[in-house]
Amino acid sequence: MTAAPLRVGLAGLGTVGMGVMRVLRDNAAHVAARGGRPIVVSVVCARDRTRNRGMTLDTVRWVDDAEALATDPEVDVAVELIGGSDGPAAALAFAALQAGRPLITANKALLARHGVALARAAEASGASLAYEAAVAGGIPVIKALREGLAANRIRRIAGILNGTCNFILTSMRERGQDFADVLAEAQKLGYAETDPSFDVDGVDTAHKLAILAALAFGREVRFDDVYVEGIRAISAQDIAFARELGFRIKLLGIARRTEAGIDTRVHPCLIPEQSPLSRVDGVYNAVVAEGDFVGRVMLEGRGAGAGPTASAVVADLIDLARGRVAPPFGVPAALLAATPSVPMTDHVGAYYLRLMVVDRPGVIADVAGALRDSGVSLESMLQHGRAPGEAVPIVLVTHDTREAAMRLAIDRIERLDSVLERPSVIRIEHG
Amino acid sequence: MTAAPLRVGLAGLGTVGMGVMRVLRDNAAHVAARGGRPIVVSVVCARDRTRNRGMTLDTVRWVDDAEALATDPEVDVAVELIGGSDGPAAALAFAALQAGRPLITANKALLARHGVALARAAEASGASLAYEAAVAGGIPVIKALREGLAANRIRRIAGILNGTCNFILTSMRERGQDFADVLAEAQKLGYAETDPSFDVDGVDTAHKLAILAALAFGREVRFDDVYVEGIRAISAQDIAFARELGFRIKLLGIARRTEAGIDTRVHPCLIPEQSPLSRVDGVYNAVVAEGDFVGRVMLEGRGAGAGPTASAVVADLIDLARGRVAPPFGVPAALLAATPSVPMTDHVGAYYLRLMVVDRPGVIADVAGALRDSGVSLESMLQHGRAPGEAVPIVLVTHDTREAAMRLAIDRIERLDSVLERPSVIRIEHG
Repeated sequence: MTAAPLRVGLAGLGTVGMGVMRVLRDNAAHVAARGGRPIVVSVVCARDRTRNRGMTLDTVRWVDDAEALATDPEVDVAVELIGGSDGPAAALAFAALQAGRPLITANKALLARHGVALARAAEASGASLAYEAAVAGGIPVIKALREGLAANRIRRIAGILNGTCNFILTSMRERGQDFADVLAEAQKLGYAETDPSFDVDGVDTAHKLAILAALAFGREVRFDDVYVEGIRAISAQDIAFARELGFRIKLLGIARRTEAGIDTRVHPCLIPEQSPLSRVDGVYNAVVAEGDFVGRVMLEGRGAGAGPTASAVVADLIDLARGRVAPPFGVPAALLAATPSVPMTDHVGAYYLRLMVVDRPGVIADVAGALRDSGVSLESMLQHGRAPGEAVPIVLVTHDTREAAMRLAIDRIERLDSVLERPSVIRIEHG
Repeated sequence: MTAAPLRVGLAGLGTVGMGVMRVLRDNAAHVAARGGRPIVVSVVCARDRTRNRGMTLDTVRWVDDAEALATDPEVDVAVELIGGSDGPAAALAFAALQAGRPLITANKALLARHGVALARAAEASGASLAYEAAVAGGIPVIKALREGLAANRIRRIAGILNGTCNFILTSMRERGQDFADVLAEAQKLGYAETDPSFDVDGVDTAHKLAILAALAFGREVRFDDVYVEGIRAISAQDIAFARELGFRIKLLGIARRTEAGIDTRVHPCLIPEQSPLSRVDGVYNAVVAEGDFVGRVMLEGRGAGAGPTASAVVADLIDLARGRVAPPFGVPAALLAATPSVPMTDHVGAYYLRLMVVDRPGVIADVAGALRDSGVSLESMLQHGRAPGEAVPIVLVTHDTREAAMRLAIDRIERLDSVLERPSVIRIEHG
């Protein structure tokens, strides 16, 4: 191997950063063969120089300022693993691209917020921008949508994009435990952050979905248009009822092209037990893409962790070393369409509703009446046991209905005397 | 879009060829945006010019000789969809690459036989060679192994690579029917050829596996070293017993890197019902890759048919239009290792055995003795009902054992008086 090495400036030496260091060390010869030349980290930047990271970093030069990597003469490509949609990550990213220096990032928040601006900056200077690690960790889903399935007009993508949520929902189902208990355990195991809101409230999934939708549909990244609902409200009871009905509950990110525009939403879903996504358990992620010629394709793998994420970062480095580049969102930024977003109130689908009601004559009639008056038609109803005068759960499944009608029905149902708490409402998807 | 179009010379206008024509017509603007320039078929070659193919072909020029596409001045890339490992397909492929003209092919037989020679020819002239459509149809598995997972040393790949076999095995399970009946139906539906041997005897899977193994392990393509066993011997009874034991039967192509070398084999497998591959049913294909950093990644989708295969061919065209090229097997041909192949007799794994025996005292002792004398230890045994003096099936599951020992045991068992027919032997895999 006589070709000049590709020199990496690495910003951020946390779990993923050290994962990248390890891949480039342990698989150095392999990576050089695949990349056509050695790939070496020449300069690093991290807050703490003294922390023991389990690996000697003697051969690299340290700089204090991430932004300095954008113009350092010993850096051929800047790798941004700092995180956060603004601050030093954004400063480095824009500085690198404006200076014509290739940028590789794992930062979904940055891309969800500034994706188009970054793509424009890259295009203006002729630098490349790659971000395989930003979505679904080790699964090469960005490459699949940007290149592998590029011949297709994509109709729909649906994904399990957050390992923390999937681990929690899987554990709730397997053990019959409630959200809070499983969350506490996930935090102990390191699968959930001390402040878990970013994951469990669906924000992380929404970031990733906004990126995938831009890529799949050739549209501007529109994070603010993504409808987001997390998993805090899911109870052990819902999971048990879902199972009885032949479903599993998953937090999905879904993007669909419709006549009216692009529909992007993140929320818990009941999906049929036999659907491929329902089998994706624990910390695994998966993405389904439906294309006009290819049909349904599913990719599954580990969505987080040092190894899988570093695998994706180094894949981007190998592409760059070989000179393989692509417009960040599949088409030149100028061609990214401004296709409108479909508001959530226009969503049409079936719904699962769980109510706590007082078990007395006429309750079902009241609830059914509220649904009818809102234009919602019922497919099935489920009640177990009897407890006259006491609180019992009932579960309703609707036919396809507009979200606006459903919300009206919920408001009506909630005001009924015999209904004791805010109904649990979960959308049903085919998976 | 002002860039000059990429002009395609298309050899073969069967199902896939016409699929490519349709993608390039129906998604012309989309493909041009993704490819950075229009992609148009300028010249075609097919045996019959007069056949009604359901689409006007007025704008293309016909040539009589596929090889002529290699040097035609109005062709920028030759797309070979003729099929067959030799003859006109090989002539066109070598002529194109030797002339420095990029080649895209869907031809697994050609690559399995001449992959390294083609890669060398491509390298010598600087032409690119791409073949996404050759394995697993619309699933971008070639790109995933060559680029998306390139940072990893792959330990193992396992795939359901033949839709015909998977359709037959799925139907056998769902309906309890025997191989011959389901095959006849598959032939009627067009899912199996009149002469089905290429598919059901595992040859097609072996071609694809030889290609995947070269790509995954950076080794020469070694089709002749692949151990191949098809699905003709699988009976409805085996499928029923497998179900009872918690398994499904799938025809897998498996390649593994071991201390002794590369192990490549195609045979029916019992895989646990909960394993992701066991859920891949009907005409779907799937590939699992296990990498040292990424862990397990699975890709699933349609493995054949006009749409999915054309999707893969056009993806290769878009890559070429954008100037994205890669060494055909991930690394330069000179770096492809000559890692030895592990002979099948050295395979170590668990086995399922179904015997038809005369139900009389001492039979089990005889069989168990034959296993013990061959060094094979039993994990479990299954017999249903009794029929003294008559033929009954018994099923045995072994602990991990060497294939050589197993073959010895089978020979011994077959010679026992009370054993009525050649035992059915199926290997057990984790999926």
